This record gives sequence, structure tokens and C-alpha cells, in this order.
Amino acid sequence: MRQSQLFTKTKKEAPSDEVSKNAELLIRGGFIHKEMAGVYSYLPLGLRVIKNIENIIREEMNAIDGQEITMTALQEKETWEPTDQWSDEKIDVWFKTKLKNETELGLAVTHEAPVTKIMKSFIQSYRDLPKFVYQFQTKFRNEARAKSGIMRCREFEMKDLYSFCKDEQEHNEFYEKSKVAYQNIFKRTGIGHITYLTFASGGMFSKYSHEFQTITGAGEDTIYLDEVKGIAINKEVNNVETLSLLGLDKDKLVEKRAVEVGNIFTLGTRFSDALNLKYQTETGELKSVFMGSYGIGPGRLMGTVVEALADDKGIIWPESIAPFKVHLLVLGDDEAVSTEANKIYESLVKNNIEVLFDDRKEVSAGEKFADADLLGIPYRTVVSTRSMKDLSAGAGGGIELKKRTEEKGKIVSLDELINLLVTRT
Amino acid sequence: MRQSQLFTKTKKEAPSDEVSKNAELLIRGGFIHKEMAGVYSYLPLGLRVIKNIENIIREEMNAIDGQEITMTALQEKETWEPTDQWSDEKIDVWFKTKLKNETELGLAVTHEAPVTKIMKSFIQSYRDLPKFVYQFQTKFRNEARAKSGIMRCREFEMKDLYSFCKDEQEHNEFYEKSKVAYQNIFKRTGIGHITYLTFASGGMFSKYSHEFQTITGAGEDTIYLDEVKGIAINKEVNNVETLSLLGLDKDKLVEKRAVEVGNIFTLGTRFSDALNLKYQTETGELKSVFMGSYGIGPGRLMGTVVEALADDKGIIWPESIAPFKVHLLVLGDDEAVSTEANKIYESLVKNNIEVLFDDRKEVSAGEKFADADLLGIPYRTVVSTRSMKDLSAGAGGGIELKKRTEEKGKIVSLDELINLLVTRT
Repeated sequence: MRQSQLFTKTKKEAPSDEVSKNAELLIRGGFIHKEMAGVYSYLPLGLRVIKNIENIIREEMNAIDGQEITMTALQEKETWEPTDQWSDEKIDVWFKTKLKNETELGLAVTHEAPVTKIMKSFIQSYRDLPKFVYQFQTKFRNEARAKSGIMRCREFEMKDLYSFCKDEQEHNEFYEKSKVAYQNIFKRTGIGHITYLTFASGGMFSKYSHEFQTITGAGEDTIYLDEVKGIAINKEVNNVETLSLLGLDKDKLVEKRAVEVGNIFTLGTRFSDALNLKYQTETGELKSVFMGSYGIGPGRLMGTVVEALADDKGIIWPESIAPFKVHLLVLGDDEAVSTEANKIYESLVKNNIEVLFDDRKEVSAGEKFADADLLGIPYRTVVSTRSMKDLSAGAGGGIELKKRTEEKGKIVSLDELINLLVTRT
Repeated sequence: MRQSQLFTKTKKEAPSDEVSKNAELLIRGGFIHKEMAGVYSYLPLGLRVIKNIENIIREEMNAIDGQEITMTALQEKETWEPTDQWSDEKIDVWFKTKLKNETELGLAVTHEAPVTKIMKSFIQSYRDLPKFVYQFQTKFRNEARAKSGIMRCREFEMKDLYSFCKDEQEHNEFYEKSKVAYQNIFKRTGIGHITYLTFASGGMFSKYSHEFQTITGAGEDTIYLDEVKGIAINKEVNNVETLSLLGLDKDKLVEKRAVEVGNIFTLGTRFSDALNLKYQTETGELKSVFMGSYGIGPGRLMGTVVEALADDKGIIWPESIAPFKVHLLVLGDDEAVSTEANKIYESLVKNNIEVLFDDRKEVSAGEKFADADLLGIPYRTVVSTRSMKDLSAGAGGGIELKKRTEEKGKIVSLDELINLLVTRT
């Protein structure tokens, strides 16, 4: 895409009411727009990142036999009463609204109860199990405070998967698979090396649930990490029993600030009992379906990547989720340079390489470099009279290539560039 | 996908509270699930149709230089007050809710005001115009009645594009392009032949707005159609002035029931004046940006396709939006037949042909045929001892192929089938 056509622009100043680094950089870069505290619109660059993250999550959910659906934001009182989760005392982040006839409705805080009701239409027999269902859908949470940018929102997208199994054993098998799928997701989105499986309290049906916590100073959580074993525990379960069960040594645990980028949870039969989701076993007996839930917020993941990987010049996107793979800058007014840059742009497009072409006129080289650093696209390529010296001397060259994470660039030819980028796609 | 793995099942009976044909068939087929009147979840088959529709719309919006974003459902009072659209008397379908601190919020009925506020960050000069921005996002409308299935919902997805131009002339150029894009969308989704550009009242800034109305008895609107000219007018503008302006003869107009599947609207400077979205002209003057809005509901389009094209056996999907291109049925318990069917399934998958494989055991041939008709996948292929006669005799064959719209099938070989389906992809 030509940057001159992109409707967003970078800003020099951070908005004064924005205290989080992720929102500051993302707003300055034109990735997101703040509607109100904890409520952000996604602009073209930001939406491209979100869709890349979604696609990675979708692939991993499909790989463990997840079937995609979309549930609704509007929810009925009757859906949440059986598990006693309707009253504002029990769930203190409900947004409530009303139909014309004064019937009270809630805005989806989560979807365990609605998905359980849906599955009642389709699960009758042991032959119908196991089943795994997921969605990408908006959650609404009426948070008292929202100061962490896109990491804690009042309205945000979540991927939530729900598992329906015959019994705890079948559930455990899937639960272990989901751990691997989640680890794949964090690896593929570029935060695998700083994201740790973290033991948390488990509720009624299981000793522990599991969080995936990414180390960053901006995190709202505290975890205790065994850096050698690569596992952590959270505050709730930081006790003698857990330490001994996991074979952890209190003195070797390091306290860290972290963001919960995902969680997996054994629900057991809490929802299926309350909402009467039962199946007939092989021997004709009626049994409650054994459930689990598995969440990841694509927006929170995006915010975490910004917090964890950015440097003092701006964002650094991992290639897998970057809005574009390569940023092509043309410098100066020289017509030969401009023609060459356009030629390179067309070649990249033709080779299906996602490229943002900074073809803006009347913008200085310094500004273009600063914007490239702020936007954080993995490969920066520059076409200028300097980069074209080799080319005009017939010695190849023509393009200065530099990774966002490198200090110095090198001169490459168009063929070399395409080769490098195509093989990495 | 193997139908035995799909978590949804078909139902013989329509839900008793569902009066619309589209919801009846879509619920029976397992495409959607009713949460409450006017609020539906999309299950795997339904979501596949929606995504196909979205992709067609997205391609057409990108082709007219639309840039995709996602705005939010939660909206502030301050956003809608300048155009006097906050009070429930002015907009009678608001769902309202509240933050913890009692601040009132509204759930997006539409997004003209929010998008205008976003553009204030990015439009300063004539050089920044024109720009075209669109999203796929949920709208919430507190309808008093919702009896048309997914054609009129309280919560539904909408593609809404907004145009920002220097003046009326630049706007008109884009407006004409948008008409063509819309016509492409309806053609590509299989309802072009029954969808008509319909003149409606235009509001402050233009004599007319335009609706795209699809003829079906289930429609909530009445239009007056000139079948020769292929244009229509709606009730609002069915008067002498409009007839003479458009050169229509009252006696040649046919009254039809129709569904509004899209609309395009000149907003002029109503929102830019009220919210102060101005740009500097080449001569340094400050001028209000000239706007337009362009809507299509993917769910309503899907419901309209069902209403308009279904027969008494079930749904008939156009190939472009069908959940799968081909439905493969295996009949009987014969092991050779089952092995052959599995081989065919794997071949289709390998050739990237979207196939639903009805590999269910203990389901009769009659039930499988009835389900295939209900689900409406364009090509039905059957593998049975009968279809395999030719094959075992070494004369090719092996598969009975029938279009959903045809009465009789024919015997083809796997190569013939793949050839047919690949060339149509």
C-alpha cells in the first residue's frame, strides 16, 4: 500500500490522558483510536496486526479440532441465572441494558452459559462427544478503571474456545493439547521466549487452572518464576502445598511483573449441571458433559507485544504479525530515484510481499526514518541517490536494507531483496 | 469436513416461535441458533456463508479504495449530541447502558458520528481527500418487533463505508462508483437478477438516496418497479415529481414486496458541520468535508438469499457463498463403497475443493438426501454400490453428480468431478 494513500498519519505527541506505553505508541503510529478510556477503534494498520494474530490463533484452534462459530453480545437474564452469575454482586463488570418492553439484557462478559445452551441442541449421546467450539467475539466488561491501553479494555475481542467431553479423562487429554496449541500461538506471535505457563487456582473441578503470563514491566499481575524450569505460579497459589506439588524451591523463584495473555480452565460440570447439558452413555445412563474454557484476547496480545518488544524509537513487530513485512522509503525528489522506487514497489506487490511504500512528497528523510521506527515494520528498505550508486555503476545494489532491530543496513539488489522476503513468507 | 465431526445436526421441525422462512430453514439446517427474538448466533455452516459474503464485499470495497477499520459498539453521549441523535425520541432504537460512574453510554446504532470524529485526527488539507473508510461491525437496534429472522435483527453485522470528499462533485464521482460496486456484490452473491436500484428520499443534501431492493414475498418494503428499465422507486418518493424526473410511467410500474439489502446515502456536511470536520482548500479557505454512507448487512443478505432462492425442500446456495462447494454422500455399509468414498473425499480436499463429506453411519439414504436438500450445497455427489457399477466394470464412473437445482444426476469419474469443480473455483 502507498503510504500517501493511507488515511492515518503518525503523531509526534502522545495523547496526554494515555499513561500506557502500548496505547501511546499505537495511537502515535495511527494503529488505534481512543473512543474513551478502555474503548479503542482499530485503524487500518492496527486491524492488519489483529487479523494476523487472529489467523495464527484460528490455525492453532482448527488444528486441535476447534469448530468456529460466533455468539452474540446481547444475553438474557435466564441464561445466567442458573449459575447465579446474573446479579451485579456476583459479576461486578456487567453492562446491562433493556428491551423496549423493559426486559433486562446483559452485554456478554463471557460465553460459558450461552455456549452450553447452544450445545444442548446438538449433544445427546456419547457419540456426539468430544466437541470443541470457539469464536472470536466482543466481550464487554464494565471495569472501574481502564489505564492499560489495549491490554485491559471495557470492550475487546476475545477468542474463547469451549470443550465438551464425556469425562475428566477425555477432558484432560484435550486440556494438554490446548496447552501446546497456546504455546504455539505465543511462539508464532513472537513472545514465546518471555511467556510462561503459570499455575493459578482452579475452582471447583480442578486443583489448578493455567495462565500464560508474558514478562513485562507493564503487567498488572505478579508471578513467581522458576527461570530454569520455565514455569511460574501466581499469587493465589504461592503456598507450600503448590511449591511441593510442583517441586519448586521458594528461594529460586523470581518475582516478575507479567501480563496474562491467555488462560485455560477446567469448568467440569458446573455449567452442564446447572443448564442440564447431559448425554447418554454407552450403557444408557445420563451424565453431565465435562467442560473446559480457553481464552486469548488478540488485542491484549497485540498490546503485550508492543510493551515487551518496543524500544525507545517505537514499536518492533515480529514478522508473523506485522502490518506489512517491508517498509519501502523513497528519499528526495530525484526523478530517477522515484522511478526506481516505484518499480521496486510494483515488483514487491507482484511477488505478494506485503509492502508499505512511503511515497510521501514533502516529507524529510529524517521524518520518514522516524516514522519507520515508530511503525515498527520488520524490514526497512530505502531507495535514494546514495543507495542507487551501485546500481548505476552496474554493480547490482540499489536498495538499502535494514532490519528494524539492526543498527546498520546493507546494500542489496531487487532480486536479492525479493529472494530474502519470499523465502521468509 | 466430515459431517460426522460437525457438531451441528439438522432438525426435522422448525422452532414453533419462528415465523420467517429464512430463520426456519437456517435453524433446521444448523446454520444459526436463536438466542432471543432478533438475536442469532452463527454456527459453523452459517459462519462459513457469512465469511464468503464478507469476502466478496471486502474485495469490492477495496476495489473502490476503501480502507478497512473496526470501530466500537460502546459510544459516548458527547459523540451524538452535536447532531441531536442521542435522545430516545430522536433515535428510537437505542440500547443504552452505563459506566460504573453512572456515565450513560449507547450501543452503536450506526457509526457516522464516531467515524467523523476519527477523521478529525487525519484530515486537515485538501491533499488528505478524498478518503474512504469501511468496517464490518455489529450494530444494535432496539426494535420493538423482530419477526423476520436474520433479515431484521436487534444485533447484527453491518458493512458500513463512509466517504470523505472535498465537494459534491468529488462525492458524486465516488457515489456512482459505489453503485457499481454494490451491483457487483449482489451479482456475485447470486441475487443480482432480482435486485433493483431503488430511488428513496434523500434527506438534506440530495434529492434521492438509493436502496438496493431484492424482490421476495418476505420483504418488509413495498417498491414500484419498472421491469423494462430495471429501476424502482420506494413509497416515499412515489409521486409525480419523481416519476417525471426519472421518466417513469405510473401505469407501467409493478408493486412488489422487497427486502432492502443495501443502501447508499449522501450525508453532505451534516456530520462534518456539527462535529467540525474541516479541511483547508488550495486557496487556504476552511471548508466542511462532504460525506456519504454506504451500508450492507451480510446477515440480511444471507437471509434474503434463503428467502428468494429456496425451494420446498430447503436452501439453495449460490456457489459463491455456499458453506461448501460440494456435498459428498456415501450410502450403505459396503466396505468397498466406503473406501472409495474416503478416497474421493481425500482427493477433493487435496485439490482444495471445499467439501462436506456425509460419512455418518446409521443414517439412511433418504435422510442423507433430505439433509443435502435442506443444507443446499450446490453440487451433490453420491457414492453407492449403484454409482460404482461403471467403475468396477472399468468404464470410469463411480460418482453420481447432481446440482442442487437439478432433478436428475449423472455418473462421472473422480477426474471429471475434480476437473469440473476446480475450473469453477
